Amino acid sequence: MTERIRDFLQDRRRAGLADGPVLVVDLEVVRENYEKFARALPDTRVFYAVKANPEPKLLAMLAELGSCFDTASVAEIRMALEAGATPDRISFGNTIKKERDIVRALELGVRLFAVDCEAEVEKIARSVGATGAEDTRVFCRILCDGAGAEWPLSRKFGCEPEMAVGVLEHAHRLGLEAYGVSFHVGSQQANTEAWDGALASASWIFRECAERGIALSMVNLGGGFPTKYLKDVPAVEAYGNSIFQALSKHFGNRLPETIIEPGRGMVGNAGVIESEVVLVSKKSRDEDEVRWVYLDIGKFGGLAETMDESIRYRIRTEHDDDRKVPCVLAGPTCDSADVMYEKTPYWLPVSLQIGDLVLIEGTGAYTSTYSSVAFNGLPPLETHVI
Amino acid sequence: MTERIRDFLQDRRRAGLADGPVLVVDLEVVRENYEKFARALPDTRVFYAVKANPEPKLLAMLAELGSCFDTASVAEIRMALEAGATPDRISFGNTIKKERDIVRALELGVRLFAVDCEAEVEKIARSVGATGAEDTRVFCRILCDGAGAEWPLSRKFGCEPEMAVGVLEHAHRLGLEAYGVSFHVGSQQANTEAWDGALASASWIFRECAERGIALSMVNLGGGFPTKYLKDVPAVEAYGNSIFQALSKHFGNRLPETIIEPGRGMVGNAGVIESEVVLVSKKSRDEDEVRWVYLDIGKFGGLAETMDESIRYRIRTEHDDDRKVPCVLAGPTCDSADVMYEKTPYWLPVSLQIGDLVLIEGTGAYTSTYSSVAFNGLPPLETHVI
Repeated sequence: MTERIRDFLQDRRRAGLADGPVLVVDLEVVRENYEKFARALPDTRVFYAVKANPEPKLLAMLAELGSCFDTASVAEIRMALEAGATPDRISFGNTIKKERDIVRALELGVRLFAVDCEAEVEKIARSVGATGAEDTRVFCRILCDGAGAEWPLSRKFGCEPEMAVGVLEHAHRLGLEAYGVSFHVGSQQANTEAWDGALASASWIFRECAERGIALSMVNLGGGFPTKYLKDVPAVEAYGNSIFQALSKHFGNRLPETIIEPGRGMVGNAGVIESEVVLVSKKSRDEDEVRWVYLDIGKFGGLAETMDESIRYRIRTEHDDDRKVPCVLAGPTCDSADVMYEKTPYWLPVSLQIGDLVLIEGTGAYTSTYSSVAFNGLPPLETHVI
Repeated sequence: MTERIRDFLQDRRRAGLADGPVLVVDLEVVRENYEKFARALPDTRVFYAVKANPEPKLLAMLAELGSCFDTASVAEIRMALEAGATPDRISFGNTIKKERDIVRALELGVRLFAVDCEAEVEKIARSVGATGAEDTRVFCRILCDGAGAEWPLSRKFGCEPEMAVGVLEHAHRLGLEAYGVSFHVGSQQANTEAWDGALASASWIFRECAERGIALSMVNLGGGFPTKYLKDVPAVEAYGNSIFQALSKHFGNRLPETIIEPGRGMVGNAGVIESEVVLVSKKSRDEDEVRWVYLDIGKFGGLAETMDESIRYRIRTEHDDDRKVPCVLAGPTCDSADVMYEKTPYWLPVSLQIGDLVLIEGTGAYTSTYSSVAFNGLPPLETHVI
């Protein structure tokens, strides 16, 4: 929560504009985050994960600061270009791409693509053939167990390291540049050592490819850098040190180029959602019955990451000095799945009441674009970048 | 799958317009569904649950057929009015309402409101005072265990029957009409007997209120009527019979007015999504490794109800006569939570390949409006009502 956000929200309320939840993102915090990454990993290029929050002003500021961009679709590539990034600063990082979208990306000048199987390599090779694009680089994503992450990754992206060697060799044979290896240690990764095992696999792939005459040059260290929710998290510097040590351990003095793809770590703590308490109630007359607190935002309005109660946001109220009681926290829709915290109830002040405004902190990432387009007739999350 | 949908999709493909997933809803199927409900429960008014699919053409046809509308927000009330429904055919069925939204609803002429606690009753009483609205009715929602439902309801909505008596009495004292009781047996409810227990509670509340001099008149039987996904489901007639028997058993020959709120049962089987296979791959070279099939639609593009693998849609391909193998089915986004079926793999033809189109049936309800507004830069689900 910054003074700039507090002032913005106060002005909005005074102007009588507050009639629904709103996300406010403070660009100054994003700037600080970018600079911390740049300082902590000075030889690593930063590819901001656009999907975390693609607000145009935010992308424009990052482009000006020198950031590169990790994109998930042609639409995100266009957003990065419109924000001022040149195509050589854009990676098409989704391993699941339609062939015609690869052609579009090549036509827009993008030359860096993620793959995790031979079929995807073949799509890119055909698209290169169709467009005559030169110097197209691919990196192969490998699986990573994600232990220690709050939003752990499934096996959806990546392949086993043994298979990655074959995938990169296939790319090389088809005339693409086998550029390197990527992995992702899991989102909101609290363990600074998590990169070590993945870097061991990456260096093994480098050696295997070298034996086949293929010189890989890049390791994409992915994202996973956490933002502060309820618990404290290690500073970016700690991740930087730990990653540098692991790189040295596995690659010796022949360090590869490296890139990182922070999303949450770049914008999470820059955003605050203001929401209204719509109802406080109990399910029976029993004194011990748990309180239900219903907000005007929930799982379908931007807080999708409360799924399985994974991400626990910090919520501030105007009664935080009062006694707190365990509450079930739910959203405003007529959908019974729209309950955010129930298995582990959320402690809120006993004096919290209908009409009170609450602040949900650390909501700059993975909120606004996750909103449903119109579920229950409710509009997507109003967003302001200041 | 109807011939009209097949023709529409074929024309769309021929016109070269097929570049993303699309939902097509056949109004003729919706009409048949409406008529089945009207026949199966002849003395029951049908309140279509707008949230299931609020497409204007669909609402207009239902309004013309005589349907009433269950709405979750002021926006949905406006949609129902624009579709041609008069305010007396609209229920504001969300138990979680902002007081200013209740005022707006009253100003739009709506007089029927759901509540499940005294605080909500008080909001309505104050709003009635502020607007001078007359004859405002409230019904109290009670909890129901939801056993037998595929998309079971949490305890989010409703209160214990004992408490409901007090809530209705409170409404009566504050000058509102204590109109009746509602419950919901859980969505996609396969057990036709599920209404029995809830009706026992409802009749008990009727008696308790009568003893206090309050004559309730209505029982809202809610939704829960299933649509056919992979498994067969009982016909609407079976539900009609079973509900009528339970009503007679608990209310004798003093049957209350009844209403139902079908959503999925009204539009689920009227819709088909056409989607493209973006990638088929494996995670290792191991022959026994499971196949991953990635579509261009997933959890964030409209198939949110695959959450926890709750709803298992029927998927048709052009190779359905071939040998089938277990597959993990995932969506197109760079989000590892965007996996639809993994714990229980989905059996798909071994010949299914990249670029193939597949049809996901029974997707008329709870799909289009659940789409995220722009996650990964992907647009919300394109929808056509024919």
